[in-house]
Amino acid sequence: MSLNRKPIPVNDAVALVLENITLMDTETVSYLDAHDRILANDLVATHDVPLFTKSAMDGFAIRARDSEGASGDNRIPFKVVEEVPAGSTSDYELQPNEAFRIMTGAEIPESADTVVMFEQAKETEDGFTVRKTFTSGDNIAVQGEESKKGDVILEKGALINPGTVAVLATFGYSEVEVFKKPEVGVLSTGSELLDVNEPLVRGKIRNSNSPMILAQLKRAGIEGKRYHLQSDDLETLYENINDMLEEVDIIITTGGVSVGDYDLLPKIYDKLGAEVLFNKVAMRPGSVTTVSRLGDKMLFGLSGNPSACYSGFELFVRPAIQAMMSSEKVYAPFIDAELDEDFTKPNPFTRFIRAEIHYVDGKVYAKPSGFNKSNAVTSIAKSNGVIVLPGGTRGFEKGDAVKVMMTDVTSGSDNFGVK
Amino acid sequence: MSLNRKPIPVNDAVALVLENITLMDTETVSYLDAHDRILANDLVATHDVPLFTKSAMDGFAIRARDSEGASGDNRIPFKVVEEVPAGSTSDYELQPNEAFRIMTGAEIPESADTVVMFEQAKETEDGFTVRKTFTSGDNIAVQGEESKKGDVILEKGALINPGTVAVLATFGYSEVEVFKKPEVGVLSTGSELLDVNEPLVRGKIRNSNSPMILAQLKRAGIEGKRYHLQSDDLETLYENINDMLEEVDIIITTGGVSVGDYDLLPKIYDKLGAEVLFNKVAMRPGSVTTVSRLGDKMLFGLSGNPSACYSGFELFVRPAIQAMMSSEKVYAPFIDAELDEDFTKPNPFTRFIRAEIHYVDGKVYAKPSGFNKSNAVTSIAKSNGVIVLPGGTRGFEKGDAVKVMMTDVTSGSDNFGVK
Repeated sequence: MSLNRKPIPVNDAVALVLENITLMDTETVSYLDAHDRILANDLVATHDVPLFTKSAMDGFAIRARDSEGASGDNRIPFKVVEEVPAGSTSDYELQPNEAFRIMTGAEIPESADTVVMFEQAKETEDGFTVRKTFTSGDNIAVQGEESKKGDVILEKGALINPGTVAVLATFGYSEVEVFKKPEVGVLSTGSELLDVNEPLVRGKIRNSNSPMILAQLKRAGIEGKRYHLQSDDLETLYENINDMLEEVDIIITTGGVSVGDYDLLPKIYDKLGAEVLFNKVAMRPGSVTTVSRLGDKMLFGLSGNPSACYSGFELFVRPAIQAMMSSEKVYAPFIDAELDEDFTKPNPFTRFIRAEIHYVDGKVYAKPSGFNKSNAVTSIAKSNGVIVLPGGTRGFEKGDAVKVMMTDVTSGSDNFGVK
Repeated sequence: MSLNRKPIPVNDAVALVLENITLMDTETVSYLDAHDRILANDLVATHDVPLFTKSAMDGFAIRARDSEGASGDNRIPFKVVEEVPAGSTSDYELQPNEAFRIMTGAEIPESADTVVMFEQAKETEDGFTVRKTFTSGDNIAVQGEESKKGDVILEKGALINPGTVAVLATFGYSEVEVFKKPEVGVLSTGSELLDVNEPLVRGKIRNSNSPMILAQLKRAGIEGKRYHLQSDDLETLYENINDMLEEVDIIITTGGVSVGDYDLLPKIYDKLGAEVLFNKVAMRPGSVTTVSRLGDKMLFGLSGNPSACYSGFELFVRPAIQAMMSSEKVYAPFIDAELDEDFTKPNPFTRFIRAEIHYVDGKVYAKPSGFNKSNAVTSIAKSNGVIVLPGGTRGFEKGDAVKVMMTDVTSGSDNFGVK
């Protein structure tokens, strides 16, 4: 087998994946189901915001000029002539020293130009008095000051988050066109793998990679399909993958991409006529990660090593899924953190290590999972991010500055954090 | 109405909410549906990890002592007597200078004690040669080195993330007991509110708070129930809320908690006999946020101001939901960021401002939404976090260090970021 695969840098590998994806079709969904989807068209304002000039406070709408000269010694009285609750309007023409009692959000009647807050007024029998001069426009939100009808509010490719849903509602978009989510199939290979309910047999272990990836897909908003491999021979695996190609847009396999005698994926890619984008990446673990393309389908051959599998999904698959939906933020954010434990092993290649991220006083701390073998399982079960250790000759110490890939951030980033 | 409400600090308000929640019951779910749920019991290792002593590499399993004295000039030959693929085992007793061809993950036969990687061996007709002395234990993962049968891997209250799902699978937990998610109902009050499909009427606006909160609930993993208010009078609102109390664990209302003439919620809480935990918080916007408890139900009266409504949900409701499921990390993480725009308005109270968070070279930047009125709608539609500006007499400038509440992080934090 090809021991001589040529490793490419991680960022080149990610870029190659993104260049090779095919855009999904679009579909129309209710604005109430649109959270977490990607806009397929620009979102355009259907009216000014605010829609009309309105009160920003509960209080009294007056003509500012009527308050001129007011002071603590010379309180100026106003008479309340009408009430304007939110949702109501009035066309009454204010006369000198008359006022509307008005609620937040109500339209400012034409003849008023400022709002006195309740807290600024002293109530009287038929109205109130003020002790200062008000300026035209106080406590008023002017029609169109936040956006004009026809403005492009968001561009195609933006994530629909709760704020976006509010904006869709505001503009009366009860439906919105979004990119379809890709269908993703997951298949673990390896004759040593037992399913969760099977009794343990000497030499075998339970399959944890498939369920882990299905959970990573869920976190990415995708309900993946799980496939079961009957046996680990070339022909069966080929048939399995052929069946999957009929049903999904993305195939994720785990295991079988290394140089072991039973690593069949390279032969399968060859037999399918898939274009191998890369089959070796300058990173640890997961150097044998292989990504191929067959027409508009992507095939991700992740390592069977659970850590490599986890990072490989977050580095390559998740951005590909986002890019297929035309997202403008396909990457996980990478942020500065402080290493919480020594990691003394020097590594020539960029290393990705699952980590427990925690936050104290605004600082981000990252504790590498699985390095300390005695608590490996616990720290893997708790891991919520990935530490990136750049390749070099030295190890790292507790307190060193490192970058972490934030796998638990749903909104993404527009730039990749590994150079 | 009570203009004299006494404001309490934000952190005291959050603590009061958490003290008053009632724990949800538990339910059993498939490990494949367990992602994002909270463990109701400690997760205990059902076997050692690794389950058996196994090869960590593809290569040859030998007796280390047979390689003693090997060098470039004195390559020591080994004969391959058997193959051990992953999932297989062998009880063959190695004789001097014999070897197993072995794959990653395969059980190490009793008579071997070290693994020579393929890359460290030069193949010969019936085996291979080595050029260095190997040490017992090289490239071998020893049974139980990562965890022992009976170890508590995670404690009750831990979030089940993709790594946790992998651990559940490893230990054969096809089902797992988790806390039920609370049922949450959302009701917007205000006679100025139109539904998304209604034609615009002078003085009225479309309801955006309910859809926004439903999306915030989705982001928090909860499918909320939307309630429609028929009219804005006390009796109807009372009946609506009474109906909701029959069906949900948490009621979120927006609007109607202020001092306006039509702010009915305080009267409703009174009529229901609900215990008001607080009705004024030392923060802006959203100072009128009111939280009440009625038996084991929580009633969140959020402000009708969209920004206050958004922050109020993230500050009070989301932690309450997490706490009801006994989560050990109920808060959003607060992290250090750089302010990306001036915010010159001084404010005596802690201010929460929706923000666009973005990431460059590991640094976190936060741009306040809605402060710059001309792009308010766009920046609200893009907001993915909340800036916390501590109360004080001065404004803030671009480049200042601020803290941001990361509303898009699914895994949470065990400490609250506002003192």
